[in-house]
Amino acid sequence: MVGRENLPALMRVLNGERLESPPLWIMRQAGRYLPEYRELRTRSKSFMEFCYSPALATEAVMQPLRRFPLDAAILFSDILVVPDALGRKVWFVEGEGPRLNPLIGEDKWVFDDPERGLQRLAPVYEAVERIKGGLDKTIALIGFCGAPWTVATYMLQGEGGEKDRARRAVYERPADVDALLDVLVEMSARHLAEQVKAGADCVQIFESWAEGLPPPLFERLIIKPTQKLVKRLRALGVTAPIIGFPRGAGVAISTYANVTGIDAIGLDTSVSSRLDLPQTMAVQGNLDPQLLVVGGAALEHGVLETIARFKDSPHIFNLGHGITPQATPENVARLVELVKGKA
Amino acid sequence: MVGRENLPALMRVLNGERLESPPLWIMRQAGRYLPEYRELRTRSKSFMEFCYSPALATEAVMQPLRRFPLDAAILFSDILVVPDALGRKVWFVEGEGPRLNPLIGEDKWVFDDPERGLQRLAPVYEAVERIKGGLDKTIALIGFCGAPWTVATYMLQGEGGEKDRARRAVYERPADVDALLDVLVEMSARHLAEQVKAGADCVQIFESWAEGLPPPLFERLIIKPTQKLVKRLRALGVTAPIIGFPRGAGVAISTYANVTGIDAIGLDTSVSSRLDLPQTMAVQGNLDPQLLVVGGAALEHGVLETIARFKDSPHIFNLGHGITPQATPENVARLVELVKGKA
Repeated sequence: MVGRENLPALMRVLNGERLESPPLWIMRQAGRYLPEYRELRTRSKSFMEFCYSPALATEAVMQPLRRFPLDAAILFSDILVVPDALGRKVWFVEGEGPRLNPLIGEDKWVFDDPERGLQRLAPVYEAVERIKGGLDKTIALIGFCGAPWTVATYMLQGEGGEKDRARRAVYERPADVDALLDVLVEMSARHLAEQVKAGADCVQIFESWAEGLPPPLFERLIIKPTQKLVKRLRALGVTAPIIGFPRGAGVAISTYANVTGIDAIGLDTSVSSRLDLPQTMAVQGNLDPQLLVVGGAALEHGVLETIARFKDSPHIFNLGHGITPQATPENVARLVELVKGKA
Repeated sequence: MVGRENLPALMRVLNGERLESPPLWIMRQAGRYLPEYRELRTRSKSFMEFCYSPALATEAVMQPLRRFPLDAAILFSDILVVPDALGRKVWFVEGEGPRLNPLIGEDKWVFDDPERGLQRLAPVYEAVERIKGGLDKTIALIGFCGAPWTVATYMLQGEGGEKDRARRAVYERPADVDALLDVLVEMSARHLAEQVKAGADCVQIFESWAEGLPPPLFERLIIKPTQKLVKRLRALGVTAPIIGFPRGAGVAISTYANVTGIDAIGLDTSVSSRLDLPQTMAVQGNLDPQLLVVGGAALEHGVLETIARFKDSPHIFNLGHGITPQATPENVARLVELVKGKA
């Protein structure tokens, strides 16, 4: 029997425990701010190919862990492997971002069967297994997916940027959009379940585009699909904790935390306190990523302030958004020292 | 003596009165969705030249009023006339947006005297006078400025887009940024005071970039400068009501409404209710602008829902963000019918 004290610190906090020193990981911790990542990335022609290479993805995950005593590893992948697996091919334009053939340009929306999609994603689950195999038992492994609405915006528009066209599609083709969200719920639940089966200890749902939605759309595009996703994941037998990260949810964040069924909540840079969250729900966040570019006294002040802000909570230290390519490894090292109380 | 019943409906609501049918105006109501505006715009080579032409600016303001029975006119100008007046030249790149020489590239930040700035802005006040002269007494005239932080982001970065560089400057050059905000407070207060002197009945402060700010920065960049601006405006003898519009403020919106000294608050698309606002404070907003592109049943539903949401409040009907060039005049006509109860 494994006692609680043998669980990785991150898992203990996800279970509602408050630790003296918060466990720490960094969104996009395997990323372009690391020279070794930039070198590794050149070994693959396309970003999607990189994501689908178990060897390269595993190496990318391990890189930050060799430098910093972080408390979690997160699968290296992309939220858009889900549409790719559904037969909506994804490619990346260098320096611009992802591209798909936009659904809004098509009369009938057709997707491949999720079962077939899972087979396409086999290299992702192989990466999870490899990472898990190489990971110290004190380090939690996080799986992830994009939330249905966030992934849908890319599928609808064929690219990122302003979400105007995606939002118009919601009004103009409501039945089609609801069906699309259902397909994404099913594929995402199966995708997360496979990651857990392959070794992920917990999962995070990235809702990157929760911002600016009118209340009825927040309910329909964010709350309902997330509820369905959590429910489906549980129905598939997955008991691993689920972290929801509704970036830009604003005043709607407490509703999101209270009704979707998630176990812990990621806070973007703008959230100042626990708000009206369930009392024992773990919070994750929420340092301004720009502080890892700036460094110095501002970084120190920001880290200590964030720790103080959540000192009475189960708290996982993280940023409020992904680390930027302009951040320096030296500033990350300093951040880790500060959080670990060794500064 | 002018009785309350002789005030324009918009001014009555700003005074805390609840009207059966909410007064209505539309952010960017003089804009590219109107063919006559697109035609008018061709008469001036540059956008700034257009803003500084009292004749063209006045004509732009009048265009939507000829089509729709709106309850307010708003000065046609740009929030960046303020830095332009301070000697930080502004120009617009067609299809991209505004440009300035970025402050972050300069060691010492120097600005012209606000007094001299006001002289440069004389054509703006002439436009206000002309508009006022041509306006029916039932229609309120709104003056405006950008909030100090919003204007500062453009000055710091030299352009719009992601605000990362502006936020880094806040950490890296705190004293310089605070001094910049103070200059903007003074220039903006004087600018608004002149607009009121020239005939504006009330003013709106556009804080377009309140989103994503960490709590200490929200306090320092949004709350404090807005407080100072309101205070300075009152010290200049201006009693006209002030509408604050902190787009993307999220959970911080009630603090903003409660402590800055504003009289009414503009709500972006994401706000679902009165929240924790002062009880008699008028709210303005907050229909999704995409509905004026989509039209039909979705528009109808959205308008009625918005009216119902704020039926117990002093409410000014508006969008949650500016109208887009893709909107149609027909949909605006339909919106007006719906709000005026003549549908």
